[in-house]
Amino acid sequence: MKARVLRVFEQLDAHTDALVLQNSIDPHLDQSFFYLFDVPSGLFEGSVAIAHRDGRLDVLSSLLEEESARQAAKHDSSVTVHAMKDNADREKIVKKLLPNAGTIALNFRELTHETFLQIEKAFPSAKWADASAAVRKARMIKDTSEIARLEKAALIGSAVAKKIPSMLRTGITELELAAEIEYAMGREGAAGRSFATIAGFGPDGAEPHFAPGGRKLEPGMSIVCDFGAFYERYASDITRSFHFGPRDAEMKHVHDTVFAAQEAALAVVRDGAIAKDVHGAAAKVIDASPFRGRFTHGLGHSIGLAVHDGFGMNPLSEEPLQTGMTITIEPGIYLPGKGGVRIEDDIVVTDEGYRFLTKAPREYLEVAA
Amino acid sequence: MKARVLRVFEQLDAHTDALVLQNSIDPHLDQSFFYLFDVPSGLFEGSVAIAHRDGRLDVLSSLLEEESARQAAKHDSSVTVHAMKDNADREKIVKKLLPNAGTIALNFRELTHETFLQIEKAFPSAKWADASAAVRKARMIKDTSEIARLEKAALIGSAVAKKIPSMLRTGITELELAAEIEYAMGREGAAGRSFATIAGFGPDGAEPHFAPGGRKLEPGMSIVCDFGAFYERYASDITRSFHFGPRDAEMKHVHDTVFAAQEAALAVVRDGAIAKDVHGAAAKVIDASPFRGRFTHGLGHSIGLAVHDGFGMNPLSEEPLQTGMTITIEPGIYLPGKGGVRIEDDIVVTDEGYRFLTKAPREYLEVAA
Repeated sequence: MKARVLRVFEQLDAHTDALVLQNSIDPHLDQSFFYLFDVPSGLFEGSVAIAHRDGRLDVLSSLLEEESARQAAKHDSSVTVHAMKDNADREKIVKKLLPNAGTIALNFRELTHETFLQIEKAFPSAKWADASAAVRKARMIKDTSEIARLEKAALIGSAVAKKIPSMLRTGITELELAAEIEYAMGREGAAGRSFATIAGFGPDGAEPHFAPGGRKLEPGMSIVCDFGAFYERYASDITRSFHFGPRDAEMKHVHDTVFAAQEAALAVVRDGAIAKDVHGAAAKVIDASPFRGRFTHGLGHSIGLAVHDGFGMNPLSEEPLQTGMTITIEPGIYLPGKGGVRIEDDIVVTDEGYRFLTKAPREYLEVAA
Repeated sequence: MKARVLRVFEQLDAHTDALVLQNSIDPHLDQSFFYLFDVPSGLFEGSVAIAHRDGRLDVLSSLLEEESARQAAKHDSSVTVHAMKDNADREKIVKKLLPNAGTIALNFRELTHETFLQIEKAFPSAKWADASAAVRKARMIKDTSEIARLEKAALIGSAVAKKIPSMLRTGITELELAAEIEYAMGREGAAGRSFATIAGFGPDGAEPHFAPGGRKLEPGMSIVCDFGAFYERYASDITRSFHFGPRDAEMKHVHDTVFAAQEAALAVVRDGAIAKDVHGAAAKVIDASPFRGRFTHGLGHSIGLAVHDGFGMNPLSEEPLQTGMTITIEPGIYLPGKGGVRIEDDIVVTDEGYRFLTKAPREYLEVAA
C-alpha cells in the first residue's frame, strides 16, 4: 500500500534506496511484509517485498500463493506481483528489481541472520541500514483500514467475553475453558487465536502469564480469562475476571480497585500523554489501596499485526501516545495463593481521549455455582 | 538435555567452544532452544541457552518464567538456570559464562539479525559458526521422549479425524468446520493447533494450501481437512478427505488412487530409503492413473517441534531416511474446479519399515447428506 510505504520512508535515512523485507519459514515471517502488502491470508514463506521511495511495492511470491498475491494486488496499482519458481529465481528477480541499489534497508528485528547473509551475498557492494525503528514507528499509528480490522478482532473477543459466564460449571478444567473460549472465537469469525489463551482458576489466576492446566473449577474460586482473536491478520487482546459461587468480599474489593485503576488510566489517555504517566495513573490507585505492590506488570502495550506490537506501557516508557495508536489498558492485582483480577480493554487513542475497540461489560461478574 | 547437546556437538566443528541459542520476541523464537531445554510450556522470549561441549546447558530466563525454568531443570542435572533482570543483566551473565570463547556457534536460521548484532557486539573478538545444519540434523532423529509426544499429538489429531463425519451438515461453512476441528483438538488435550486448519469444500479442496472461508457445504461436495495439534511443543499433521451426499464415481476413483499412492510410498519407507524415491513411489501410482499430473506437491516432510521440521520429500530430495525420523506421507490429487483428495499420516521410520503415529481410518468416507 503506497501510503504505508511512504510512511515508512518518512522515517528512513534520505540515502536509503529501497526497503527489502524477506520472510523465512513460518514462524520466522516478517509481519511488516503484511503491513506493506495487504493480503488478508496466506503464509508467504520465502516471499520478498521491495518497497521503493516513490511508494511502489514489488512483491515476490511462490507459485503456490501467486493467485492470492495477484488477487490482493488487483485493487492496488502501486503493487507489482512477481512469481518466483525457486530460491535462485528469487535472487535473480530481486537483483533485476534493484540494479543500482547503494543503501538497502532491512528489518533486522524480523529477519533471520541466515536470510540476511543470503541477501548480503546477492548485493556484495550494498550498504545495509536497519529499518526496525522506522517500520515500528510507521506501524504504531494505524490507518482506517487497520482500525476497522482491529475493531472486528476486538468485537470477536468481546462477544466471547460475554459468553464466558455460560461456560462456567463446577469441575470444568482450565484447559477445557480455554478450548471453549477459542472455539467461540472461531464461531464468531476469528482466523485463529492471537496468543495462547490464559484461563486461571483460584491461585492460578494470581500468575499473570499462567498457562492453563488441569485445575478444576470449584465454587469460591476467582477466574481470570485473557485471550484474543486474529481477524485478517490483526489481533485483539481482552481480559475479563469472574468469581464463581459464594461471594468473596476481598476479591470484590480487588476487582473494584482494578476497575478504578483502569478508569484512572483511561482518564489520562489522549494524544500527547506519555505512556509511563498512563501506567502511573493506574498504579497510583492500586498503591493507595490495601493491595499496594500487587500490580506486578506493565499497564499495557501497543497492538496491531502482533499482540505485542511496538511498545509497552510501564513505569519506564517515555513513548508519547498519538492519535491512531491502538493499545491495551490492563491493570491487575494478584494475591498469591488466592487469586487475581485483571481487566483489559483495547482502545484507539484520539485527539481528545480514546475510543473503546473492545465492548464487553467490565463489571465483576459473580456467577452462581 | 545432555544427550541432545552432545548430539548437536557431534555435528559441529571440533573448534566450536559453545553453542548459543537466543530467542527474540514471539514469534521469533528458536525452536532448538526447546530441543535442548526440555520445558513443556512458556514463551521464553529473550531467553538464552548456552550449550557446552561436555553436555552442560546454561539457561537464562526472565524473572517472569524463572519458576517454570527451575521446575524443568529440577530433573536434569546437566542444566543450570540463571535468572536475568533485563537485557544488560543478560549480557553480563552470558559474558561470565563464556569467558574465553573463541568460536561460538549460533543457529543462523532461527536467530534474528538484530539479535545476532547484539551478540556480536558482546563478543567482539569471537568467531561465528552457523549451527543451522548441525541443529537440523540432530533434531531430525527423534529420541524416545520426543516420539512419545509426537505420538500423543498424532493421537489427538486422529481422535478428531474420526469425529469429522459427525460435524458435517448441509450449510456449515469451511470456517465453522475449521473451528469445530480445532475445538475438538483442544478438548482432546491439544495445547493449540500446530498450523492454521485447512477445510476446503468442493472446488476449494482442489487448492492444496487453501485457507477456509465462507463457502457452505452442499450435498455432492468432497471435503479436504488438513489439521494438527501441538502437545508439549510437538506437532502432528493429518489430512482426511470425505465425500458429502450422493456418491461421485470420479472422486471415489481419485480417492482409491491416492490411497494406493500412499500405500506404495509406505511400502518403500525404511532406514536408508532416499526421500525422493519415496515420493517417486507415490507419484508413479498417480502418473499411471487418469489423474496424471494432478499430484502437485511434495509427498511429505519431517515433523517435530515444528510442523515443517527439517526436510521435505519431493522429487529432488536426496535425504536418506533414518530410523527415528518422523515424517508425514501425504499424496493428493486435485481436480481444479471440482475437488481434491489428500490422505496424510505421520509415521516414524524404523529399521525394517515404519510405524504409524496417526491412527484414524484412511478409507474414503461417504457421509450421508
